[in-house]
Amino acid sequence: MQIHLHQTHHTLADFSTIFQTLKSSIKRPGIHLYPELFLTGYPLADLCLSAPFIQRYHLFLEEINAWASTLPEQDDYVCLLGGLSYDLGPEGVPVDIRNVVYELKAGSSLREIYTKRLLPNYDIFDEQKYFTAGQTPGIWEFGGERFGLLICEDMWASSFHHLDPARELAKAGPFRAVFNLSASPFDIYKAQKRRDRARALSTLFKAPFYYVNRVGGEDEILFDGSSFGVNGFETLGVAPRFAEHTLSLPLALATQYLPVGDDLEENTWESLFAAQFSADKSLPRRLRVWDNDECEMITEALKFGLQEYAQKSGFKKFLVALSGGLDSSLVLTIVKMSLLPGQEVEAIYMPGNYSSPISWDLSSKLCLKLGVRLNSLPIKFLHSTIKMNFQGTFTESFEGLTDENVQSRLRGLLLYTRSNQTGAMVVNTSNKSEIAVGYSTQYGDSVGAISLLGDVYKTEAYRLAEWINHKFGAVIPDGIIQRPPSAELRADQKDQDSLPPYERLDAILEGILSFRYTYKDLLTQGFSEEEVKKVFELYYKSEYKRRQFCPIIKIKSKSFGFGYRVPLTKNTGFYRPQP
Amino acid sequence: MQIHLHQTHHTLADFSTIFQTLKSSIKRPGIHLYPELFLTGYPLADLCLSAPFIQRYHLFLEEINAWASTLPEQDDYVCLLGGLSYDLGPEGVPVDIRNVVYELKAGSSLREIYTKRLLPNYDIFDEQKYFTAGQTPGIWEFGGERFGLLICEDMWASSFHHLDPARELAKAGPFRAVFNLSASPFDIYKAQKRRDRARALSTLFKAPFYYVNRVGGEDEILFDGSSFGVNGFETLGVAPRFAEHTLSLPLALATQYLPVGDDLEENTWESLFAAQFSADKSLPRRLRVWDNDECEMITEALKFGLQEYAQKSGFKKFLVALSGGLDSSLVLTIVKMSLLPGQEVEAIYMPGNYSSPISWDLSSKLCLKLGVRLNSLPIKFLHSTIKMNFQGTFTESFEGLTDENVQSRLRGLLLYTRSNQTGAMVVNTSNKSEIAVGYSTQYGDSVGAISLLGDVYKTEAYRLAEWINHKFGAVIPDGIIQRPPSAELRADQKDQDSLPPYERLDAILEGILSFRYTYKDLLTQGFSEEEVKKVFELYYKSEYKRRQFCPIIKIKSKSFGFGYRVPLTKNTGFYRPQP
Repeated sequence: MQIHLHQTHHTLADFSTIFQTLKSSIKRPGIHLYPELFLTGYPLADLCLSAPFIQRYHLFLEEINAWASTLPEQDDYVCLLGGLSYDLGPEGVPVDIRNVVYELKAGSSLREIYTKRLLPNYDIFDEQKYFTAGQTPGIWEFGGERFGLLICEDMWASSFHHLDPARELAKAGPFRAVFNLSASPFDIYKAQKRRDRARALSTLFKAPFYYVNRVGGEDEILFDGSSFGVNGFETLGVAPRFAEHTLSLPLALATQYLPVGDDLEENTWESLFAAQFSADKSLPRRLRVWDNDECEMITEALKFGLQEYAQKSGFKKFLVALSGGLDSSLVLTIVKMSLLPGQEVEAIYMPGNYSSPISWDLSSKLCLKLGVRLNSLPIKFLHSTIKMNFQGTFTESFEGLTDENVQSRLRGLLLYTRSNQTGAMVVNTSNKSEIAVGYSTQYGDSVGAISLLGDVYKTEAYRLAEWINHKFGAVIPDGIIQRPPSAELRADQKDQDSLPPYERLDAILEGILSFRYTYKDLLTQGFSEEEVKKVFELYYKSEYKRRQFCPIIKIKSKSFGFGYRVPLTKNTGFYRPQP
Repeated sequence: MQIHLHQTHHTLADFSTIFQTLKSSIKRPGIHLYPELFLTGYPLADLCLSAPFIQRYHLFLEEINAWASTLPEQDDYVCLLGGLSYDLGPEGVPVDIRNVVYELKAGSSLREIYTKRLLPNYDIFDEQKYFTAGQTPGIWEFGGERFGLLICEDMWASSFHHLDPARELAKAGPFRAVFNLSASPFDIYKAQKRRDRARALSTLFKAPFYYVNRVGGEDEILFDGSSFGVNGFETLGVAPRFAEHTLSLPLALATQYLPVGDDLEENTWESLFAAQFSADKSLPRRLRVWDNDECEMITEALKFGLQEYAQKSGFKKFLVALSGGLDSSLVLTIVKMSLLPGQEVEAIYMPGNYSSPISWDLSSKLCLKLGVRLNSLPIKFLHSTIKMNFQGTFTESFEGLTDENVQSRLRGLLLYTRSNQTGAMVVNTSNKSEIAVGYSTQYGDSVGAISLLGDVYKTEAYRLAEWINHKFGAVIPDGIIQRPPSAELRADQKDQDSLPPYERLDAILEGILSFRYTYKDLLTQGFSEEEVKKVFELYYKSEYKRRQFCPIIKIKSKSFGFGYRVPLTKNTGFYRPQP
């Protein structure tokens, strides 16, 4: 008996393509596993409440039933499909929506066999907003054997879930095998965590464990696939990440399972959002440095996320504003690396009064290396015209922030004007450190359709650049990597004049954002009162900029975006140490 | 015995002010009711997971206990306070967070007496993300009498809640009175709904019902207060809306309660999100027209929401871009009406190539009427400079959307440059009709700190303008109200050239957004295939603009913003009628 793990890749609600995929698996003997909510896509958010969506989906289910019932019956073939099941009220209004597994056999109709029990509702997950939880363990029989069923989060348990469907299921065993249908978002540590957990569960169930995950980029959230089978501590097979794939594995025989005690890792808040500090315990703490494999995986994720957004939105051209600094150079490089046949990327350099000539040289050098068309659109004249207009109209000073921001906003404007001309998608170039402290101009350098580096700290951006140069030859000129970061919005401006050194800033930010450290915790981590106070202040007062920011490709467990929900107006004095 | 309904008004997490408010009620005999989450503010979103917040809050609870325990004991005095109760894990990580009622007596410590049972988790509500529900009815004894306790949503029940705490509580009766501590967001119909529901519950409980609600604007969400007491169908008293207030009412005696059957209104999805069409059933359907009281309430809500955001963010100046059209004129008028001593508002008019001279005349007239400083910042020269630059640098055409958007973005840029100069808060001028169909330029006319009219359809904006002129004398020049709407971004441009008439557009949009109508439903409502198709298309393809939009003051049950969660990338073909 074969287990086919179909890690599918579709646009949300693209029913006809989903149907094609389903049809293509037919007639191959074995158990065919499809991801959680394969029949609709995930996450749907409010789409699953939309009447037009609900009607079309039900029509789709009828189409599947009509098609399947005409197929000759087949004993050795079955599909398990993730989908939605609705209870509709009097006027077609959804009363209950369940996240379920359907069984589909040739010659039969869809049969609902299991409802997801553990509905994740933290961070980016809103499942309790939409779905009603199942109450009973997933037990399914096929070919005279019993199998255990789980959907995604069901395989995890934690101190904040108050429910442990996997252990409950284990009590209902034994099973010939256990299947998990997932739509599990990517982060840098996720694939490893899933396999570790699956091995422990296989041992608990004393049965092989098969895990199928969807592939796709849904705005900011990536699904990596990386489906697998394990049998105790043995890995039966692993599918690639970020690619549609069918992994066919034999139904493994029960083996010798090493004993596992109560040490199934708890998926607590800490483990979900643990800050990733360096193993080196010297103070002040530093972020853990990504190894080469991690750099490769992150780069792949960013390319995939970018392409998913572009293709689903119909873009064939990309546009990047180059400043001669690291972030925009790295973004341009990754965009270029991601290009598919028929796609192109263009760079624009927009020098102002304080742009160093070296910024142009370095930008040209990079574009030459990458083979990317670079145009220059100076902002000096527009800048001085606006300044004169204002000085002629208003009495207030134009110096300082006013003079700085207008340059950044002129660049945003020119960039979008060019985007209007060519239909290119503007890729945002802000990094996570800047976004966290508000070191950007609203409607200026913060513009874009999607952000590539918004979940990548500045020090991590350096690491990625270094890895790219190491792996692909010196693509990004050394001059770009070595020059001190600057927004070039006033004379001799350097980031480090107004911010702590990035190595310290990033570690403090990770402490605040992911590990929810207090002021005191951060002092214990070796940071000074002055820098901790400064970072907290900048972080709290820039919330309004993050609210209007573009979607950020999510590569970590804690990111800005949909799963980050912080009120704009609030008293923030509470972070200060208490007397 | 007196019941004191304290409808309090604080910034989130402003513990010292909250403490002052609490102290000021002390020693007045009676039962003092404070709103849901009075001790922290609401909605906190992720703030309630933040370690600095949690530590400071626990310190605050200790401060309250230390203070209360030193007060001489008093038999005829008690406070019921909404607050959070945490179960913390090993490292201070929250395992369970409950939304509770604390009892506080002079000479004692805080005592947790009830946990909210019905945690709203639809639309703007994410309570199941943060809170753990209580399991038992709220029964509380004081002075030898039994009282029933509810927190906000507990008093509602619906087909999608699967729980009816009020009916369960009724079975545990009889009670001398029932109290509801609320943090209930404003919408145009909410105050009426609450009182209707309370009257039905008072009848069910056969006891007087006291309801206290908080006051505040939290970004987009408004809390109106409007606390009250009812006894059966008798109203004991009603507190004002949008103002801090203490309403003291006698503890009423049980009266003759008219029988109530099973007709307690069900709070279903339909009733929550019902489209508000005109009572006139002729086709095509039209929106219900606001009466004078409703116009007054909405204007009050918009002024309150604006001032809440401004004051909590520290703004004393406002800035509005006037176009000579209705929306910006109405926004300026409402901003001016809202001004407090020490505040000011400035208007800027930014004429371009296609701005009619009448736009300036009308803007000047309005500003003269309002006594608002008006400056003109022409964009023609900047516009033509950019056009020439582009024509010199690029081969692609500059006509059409490129030429239109650059004007809108120049206005956004100049507006924000002026805002940088004066520290003024930019008030967005888009209306709900425009936002719904994407009839605005990203980073252009869509900019702002907060949107006043983003939940007001264009036809409703006309109605508000008409009401303001009726109530306060002709403030907004007739010319502004009568001229056909235009973005003035190309020659002879009129909104109605590319959109259905606003009366029809708004009704279609309300059908799609609030009532989740299908294509077919809308045809039944009397709209043409052509216009329905056009609106659906424009609506679906403008999601990316709404994602980066500023917070919109929410005045309806279904609004764009936090409670509206729709994926950007998706297949949208499903709205089309099925073969």
